[in-house]
Amino acid sequence: MATARAKRKQFRTYRKGAPGQSPGTLIIDVDAPRPALHVIAYDQRELVERDVSALDEIPPLLAAFPVVWLNIDGFGDLTVLRRLGEMFNLHRLALEDVVSVHQRPKAEAYGELLFTVLPMPSSTEPLTTEQVSLFLGRSFVLTFQEEERPGDVFSPVRDRLRRGVGTLRSAGPGYLAYALVDALIDSYFPVLEGFGERLEALEEEVLTSGDASSVRRIHAARHDLLALRRAVWPLREVLTEIQRQDNSPFDAETRLHLRDCHDHVVQILDFVETYREVVSGLLEIYMTSVSNRMNEIMKVLTIISTLFMPLSFIAGVYGMNFDRETSPWNMPELGWYLGYPLALGLMLGVALALLAFFRHRKWL
Amino acid sequence: MATARAKRKQFRTYRKGAPGQSPGTLIIDVDAPRPALHVIAYDQRELVERDVSALDEIPPLLAAFPVVWLNIDGFGDLTVLRRLGEMFNLHRLALEDVVSVHQRPKAEAYGELLFTVLPMPSSTEPLTTEQVSLFLGRSFVLTFQEEERPGDVFSPVRDRLRRGVGTLRSAGPGYLAYALVDALIDSYFPVLEGFGERLEALEEEVLTSGDASSVRRIHAARHDLLALRRAVWPLREVLTEIQRQDNSPFDAETRLHLRDCHDHVVQILDFVETYREVVSGLLEIYMTSVSNRMNEIMKVLTIISTLFMPLSFIAGVYGMNFDRETSPWNMPELGWYLGYPLALGLMLGVALALLAFFRHRKWL
Amino acid sequence: MATARAKRKQFRTYRKGAPGQSPGTLIIDVDAPRPALHVIAYDQRELVERDVSALDEIPPLLAAFPVVWLNIDGFGDLTVLRRLGEMFNLHRLALEDVVSVHQRPKAEAYGELLFTVLPMPSSTEPLTTEQVSLFLGRSFVLTFQEEERPGDVFSPVRDRLRRGVGTLRSAGPGYLAYALVDALIDSYFPVLEGFGERLEALEEEVLTSGDASSVRRIHAARHDLLALRRAVWPLREVLTEIQRQDNSPFDAETRLHLRDCHDHVVQILDFVETYREVVSGLLEIYMTSVSNRMNEIMKVLTIISTLFMPLSFIAGVYGMNFDRETSPWNMPELGWYLGYPLALGLMLGVALALLAFFRHRKWL
Amino acid sequence: MATARAKRKQFRTYRKGAPGQSPGTLIIDVDAPRPALHVIAYDQRELVERDVSALDEIPPLLAAFPVVWLNIDGFGDLTVLRRLGEMFNLHRLALEDVVSVHQRPKAEAYGELLFTVLPMPSSTEPLTTEQVSLFLGRSFVLTFQEEERPGDVFSPVRDRLRRGVGTLRSAGPGYLAYALVDALIDSYFPVLEGFGERLEALEEEVLTSGDASSVRRIHAARHDLLALRRAVWPLREVLTEIQRQDNSPFDAETRLHLRDCHDHVVQILDFVETYREVVSGLLEIYMTSVSNRMNEIMKVLTIISTLFMPLSFIAGVYGMNFDRETSPWNMPELGWYLGYPLALGLMLGVALALLAFFRHRKWL
Amino acid sequence: MATARAKRKQFRTYRKGAPGQSPGTLIIDVDAPRPALHVIAYDQRELVERDVSALDEIPPLLAAFPVVWLNIDGFGDLTVLRRLGEMFNLHRLALEDVVSVHQRPKAEAYGELLFTVLPMPSSTEPLTTEQVSLFLGRSFVLTFQEEERPGDVFSPVRDRLRRGVGTLRSAGPGYLAYALVDALIDSYFPVLEGFGERLEALEEEVLTSGDASSVRRIHAARHDLLALRRAVWPLREVLTEIQRQDNSPFDAETRLHLRDCHDHVVQILDFVETYREVVSGLLEIYMTSVSNRMNEIMKVLTIISTLFMPLSFIAGVYGMNFDRETSPWNMPELGWYLGYPLALGLMLGVALALLAFFRHRKWL
Repeated sequence: MATARAKRKQFRTYRKGAPGQSPGTLIIDVDAPRPALHVIAYDQRELVERDVSALDEIPPLLAAFPVVWLNIDGFGDLTVLRRLGEMFNLHRLALEDVVSVHQRPKAEAYGELLFTVLPMPSSTEPLTTEQVSLFLGRSFVLTFQEEERPGDVFSPVRDRLRRGVGTLRSAGPGYLAYALVDALIDSYFPVLEGFGERLEALEEEVLTSGDASSVRRIHAARHDLLALRRAVWPLREVLTEIQRQDNSPFDAETRLHLRDCHDHVVQILDFVETYREVVSGLLEIYMTSVSNRMNEIMKVLTIISTLFMPLSFIAGVYGMNFDRETSPWNMPELGWYLGYPLALGLMLGVALALLAFFRHRKWL
Repeated sequence: MATARAKRKQFRTYRKGAPGQSPGTLIIDVDAPRPALHVIAYDQRELVERDVSALDEIPPLLAAFPVVWLNIDGFGDLTVLRRLGEMFNLHRLALEDVVSVHQRPKAEAYGELLFTVLPMPSSTEPLTTEQVSLFLGRSFVLTFQEEERPGDVFSPVRDRLRRGVGTLRSAGPGYLAYALVDALIDSYFPVLEGFGERLEALEEEVLTSGDASSVRRIHAARHDLLALRRAVWPLREVLTEIQRQDNSPFDAETRLHLRDCHDHVVQILDFVETYREVVSGLLEIYMTSVSNRMNEIMKVLTIISTLFMPLSFIAGVYGMNFDRETSPWNMPELGWYLGYPLALGLMLGVALALLAFFRHRKWL
Repeated sequence: MATARAKRKQFRTYRKGAPGQSPGTLIIDVDAPRPALHVIAYDQRELVERDVSALDEIPPLLAAFPVVWLNIDGFGDLTVLRRLGEMFNLHRLALEDVVSVHQRPKAEAYGELLFTVLPMPSSTEPLTTEQVSLFLGRSFVLTFQEEERPGDVFSPVRDRLRRGVGTLRSAGPGYLAYALVDALIDSYFPVLEGFGERLEALEEEVLTSGDASSVRRIHAARHDLLALRRAVWPLREVLTEIQRQDNSPFDAETRLHLRDCHDHVVQILDFVETYREVVSGLLEIYMTSVSNRMNEIMKVLTIISTLFMPLSFIAGVYGMNFDRETSPWNMPELGWYLGYPLALGLMLGVALALLAFFRHRKWL
Repeated sequence: MATARAKRKQFRTYRKGAPGQSPGTLIIDVDAPRPALHVIAYDQRELVERDVSALDEIPPLLAAFPVVWLNIDGFGDLTVLRRLGEMFNLHRLALEDVVSVHQRPKAEAYGELLFTVLPMPSSTEPLTTEQVSLFLGRSFVLTFQEEERPGDVFSPVRDRLRRGVGTLRSAGPGYLAYALVDALIDSYFPVLEGFGERLEALEEEVLTSGDASSVRRIHAARHDLLALRRAVWPLREVLTEIQRQDNSPFDAETRLHLRDCHDHVVQILDFVETYREVVSGLLEIYMTSVSNRMNEIMKVLTIISTLFMPLSFIAGVYGMNFDRETSPWNMPELGWYLGYPLALGLMLGVALALLAFFRHRKWL
Repeated sequence: MATARAKRKQFRTYRKGAPGQSPGTLIIDVDAPRPALHVIAYDQRELVERDVSALDEIPPLLAAFPVVWLNIDGFGDLTVLRRLGEMFNLHRLALEDVVSVHQRPKAEAYGELLFTVLPMPSSTEPLTTEQVSLFLGRSFVLTFQEEERPGDVFSPVRDRLRRGVGTLRSAGPGYLAYALVDALIDSYFPVLEGFGERLEALEEEVLTSGDASSVRRIHAARHDLLALRRAVWPLREVLTEIQRQDNSPFDAETRLHLRDCHDHVVQILDFVETYREVVSGLLEIYMTSVSNRMNEIMKVLTIISTLFMPLSFIAGVYGMNFDRETSPWNMPELGWYLGYPLALGLMLGVALALLAFFRHRKWL
């Protein structure tokens, strides 16, 4: 079922309300899950973490802690989104992008706020992505995900926060944002590994017993690689954009880390390109093997026909009914003492000559 | 009929009078509908809307309202166009572009005026576009469409103006121009969705029962995608151009919205590229299925030939007329007590051996 | 004959004297027609037009009129060219380019002079171009064409000058140069239309009765489109170059017109690209239809073989000569009362079964 | 075995710990060999070279010599790496890159330190690379290799240092770093030569006796060229980056040498591109030869069938059993005096006519 | 033999000593011819030209003349090269490039000296190039060629110097360098013409009687075009580089000429691209003609099989031996008065019906 839905996603474009609608109008899918809010507020010594039931719980945390990370899963409630928009001063165009899934990855500055939309791999065969939106402010990070899922890509970051190891707890919200983006990008590596195995299996299949269904599988892989490329390609630009921001919310050290992130994205794209070439190669190998099998079949047909047609002709000749009594010229062979053995011998000779010819042509 | 005309449009280039003609000469298609003018003038409190029968009605509106939107459908009357040119100070090269449909999308500054030519999707199979021209001045917006059509892409904007909701009524002509461009670009999304369904149907068809007509349909889809790309591709540049204009007629907030528009265009192009790859894949799948069917046919032919040729040969041998009375060596088998059953048995044996060979070769 | 010469042009490169020759050496094709000079000198009130027999006629015109347009058809006389070079201060490298046809389109500044080389379509199937060179000075325009032809692309400009309508007579030599370039570029539109019709005809042909000669025609069209693109592509750069010139000989208004010209070139290239894709599509359609016909033929062969081989085998069996008198086991069917009808019935049964099989496989 | 491991490397992506892990965490492959350290410290007069067993040996050398080159083979010991990091002030992100093999080649500045990651060819069929990391500081060069190997690419540089010839001994660490990079890049030339021979052999094979395994070999070569390109392509950028560094650690003379290095990389890429085209050509030649052989086979089949079918038909006609006694119209030929020779003559005539037809069609 | 050597050149990369060797080491091919030096020193009035046997002859010429051109053919003597290096202050990296043939074309500044490496076409089928190196100093030009050849590309320049015509004698070393580069680039035009004729011949061949050897010839042409492109492509950059040099050794007039040179290179590349497309077209035409011939063969086979199988079947039926005496139902046709003529008539009828079917299918 998840696959069917994923499949549907591949062909359908995102429908953003009626064309010509007022921009910044929040359109919410009726089936979208209601938002589940989870907040982590911390400084170097203390960390508060809880599910948020009422939005009023948040301002005191903002006042008490230098960094507040609010994660929202699902956009099923317009009121909540609007109140978040007011509380954190989010631009309505940005909010519209948050709820309109299938946005292109992008990074945009709205005054002091940095807003980015990032795709997160959600299923692999076919490959689909979910949209993660992130706002980075002076003292907070907001992340929006399409739906709640146990063990999302941000879990390791939560664990690192809780354990208080590394520089994460002592650094500001910029470093937290970096850590989240880094976790998201790293989540593509297992996807790539899955592709590696999938292509290896396909290569094995094509070389041994490929049939029409292999072609379909190859095309599916190509399609998925295309989707992957479409997701990851703009990430490169996004990361460049983030680093170049005027009044950057990132300090020099964090920018070094973002450069590292950028390298990972380039590395992912390198793999995608390589895999795309591998897939093209698979198709060619399949085509070659098909035409080779065709050749094999034609050879067998030709050998058999070429062998038996002359033989049958000889048999046909001696099956003619010319009247031997009328004339000594009429089929005297039929009356020879060794007529039949000679005829069989002739046939054998012809057959051997033809086989020699085939061998000469390297068909046998 | 509409399709035939659309088809014709694909292959024909636009004919702009005779070569070497004086530039800025307005050439009007004799079949072009006479212009129908519709004006909407508004400020934050009041909105006047009416069909314009005499051009003299317009200057008072320009004087009374901060924003006047004049929409002209059809260019069948040279006098009207010339007088509009004088009234709004439109450059004659721009006016020539307005009436010469099949212009490339573009944005150009003529002094204070911003002039853009934009393609609007008008039919989908085959895909054609109509040309919309827009002039943005200090206090007015002019839009030109090829012909009047009920419920055009600008209707939702008109409705929003009438309802007075959103920022539209309080903002200036720049925001109105943005809203119109946005509505036009959004009108491509339903077209994309149509493509999605069309390609899904084609994929279904190719996988089950594709024949030569499928190829033609695939090529038609490719052709339409090409036309779509040709229409949308320069829009990207147009929007960049509009945003970069010196003395921009757009305020900072509107420019944020134009950036959003630009994102939509990029998203459309992303889909077009994906669809183009899907179409290429469909052609390959078709080719594969054709060659697979060919292989099937050849296999059947080969199996039948290979099976019956040896059998017929055996029958042929025992149909020879060698004279058994002349010599005991001449076809003694014919006189054996079990000669016929043995011959049939030999045939059966050969047939079984060949079937085993076919099974070994995995042809059965 | 014109076609044969045009054909030859496609494969031959231009031969500029011996390699290593002194640059600026004027090499003249011995068959080149002798130059025919035609001058038009004008100001806003007066226009003088005449064929020039002696070069001495020109300086007085230069002194008397603000704009002098001298058109030279053919380069068959070295002396004339050299004297023109001295009179108008033309650089010898530029003059070398004038007489060396098959130059790449380009625009170059030689001091105050602007020199451009432009290709003009001269035949369409195969497509060839002739070279037009244009010098623009403070008070004159020189145009060089390969040969004299009645009704060349500049005729409409001459007519407009004579009629004195438009801004042409009142504007300077820059505007005249623009008008000539515009006329030349507009002359590509009929060529494009011709291509449109040619491709429509080819598509019709391929879909109905394409044979090997269609492929040749498709390739010819592709070749011509390539030649067209090669001619027009650098024009884009040329027009950009002309507009960007320091100390531009063009005023602001003329530059607006040149921008318009530039748009036309881009539009032509758009069409060329579209046509190139159409041609690729035609080739694929042809390939598909060939392989479909192949499939059809194979099907017929397979059906016939598969049908008659078993039948012939049955006939062969009952044509065997086993001695029925020796044994009751030897072909007793031959002696049955209904032996022959039963044999025919068996054949009919086999044939019907095979036909059912073909129908099942959807081959009939 | 080395090949199997190399093969595995092609399809697998590098796995950098769990996604979301703290950046700069050093993850060490449990199978990685323990580091073997080798130091060369020199000035113009003296050179000290030894294997390092305790890291404490290094600071005195740093104090005593202007240039210290420390080479580390293998990263199997975390403690050693951490202490090196502290001693030379290496950034933890850089150290993470050192141990995470399969990094993209890159050059990065960390304050005064220049850090580059470079791929070194390690096996050729399939082509794999090992990662070499190099740190260049004010008075030292650190190089990291994945494992110790006798006669690595740096050996010639060591020899030149020991011999003390050339400018190497008198120049600073920048020149040493250049020499190492140069040696590494030069090590691609033998790889390229190997490719040249491999492709020559493949061409020979395809032209004489290519079968399906040739296709696989061609694809392997293509895959390897792709891997080679992927390794070398970013080197170009790396070398540009190194030269452009602010506060460059390289003097003017060394930068001339780096420009030379850059040329070599471009030259390698040129060869790779040429080889890629050669490989594409090989595939096409193979395809052509396959379809030629198919044509050959079909010709033989057609000739044989076309020859013997009419002959067999004639024989079949005279094998019919119409009752000659009932009617003079029933097969009177059978009773002719020369019936049989005439029948054979007819067959011969038909055969000769068909052979003439084949010769006319140029099939023989 | 020259061809075999040229062939070898295509696949082999240049081997520059052992990897890791000291840069600037001059490695000399043991088979390289010993250098032959030829000097031309001139001013506007006087010209001295002679073969140089001792290098001491050169300094006096340098002192006496404003321009000295020393041409060196062959690098077989290390001492000479080293002494030239000292005399003209040539950088050792540049000297290394001189003797390492198969360098990429490039232009580099070493202080006041301009150094360029240029490829010169040396054989055409297969296409190979030789390397020409040129140093341009304040008062001298050095040119290095791989071997001495009578009538090299520089001969026309020598002749122009000797004749003293043109500006060559009065201009400085910059203009001489330009003249040499121009002569070298012009030498590509005859090569292009050769390609034109070669492709015309190939097209003729493919259209009339193409076989597998045509494919090989087409691929050889493609390979040569690739080699040509690889040689000429970087020349463009080289010429741009030369023109942009700071402290350019070229005066304004010479730079105009270099711009002209640059145009020629672009023109050559244009032709190469066109030829590459022509070659691709040839391959497609060949493929089409092969599949057309296949279709022809299949048609003949099908027609013959379809025609004779039913006829042979009828003959087979009347060759069955059912016992007419046992039953009146057993093959009564055999006893009919007109049985045989009727049977022949039936066969004729079937044959005509089938021929009508073939004609209907347009196979005849």
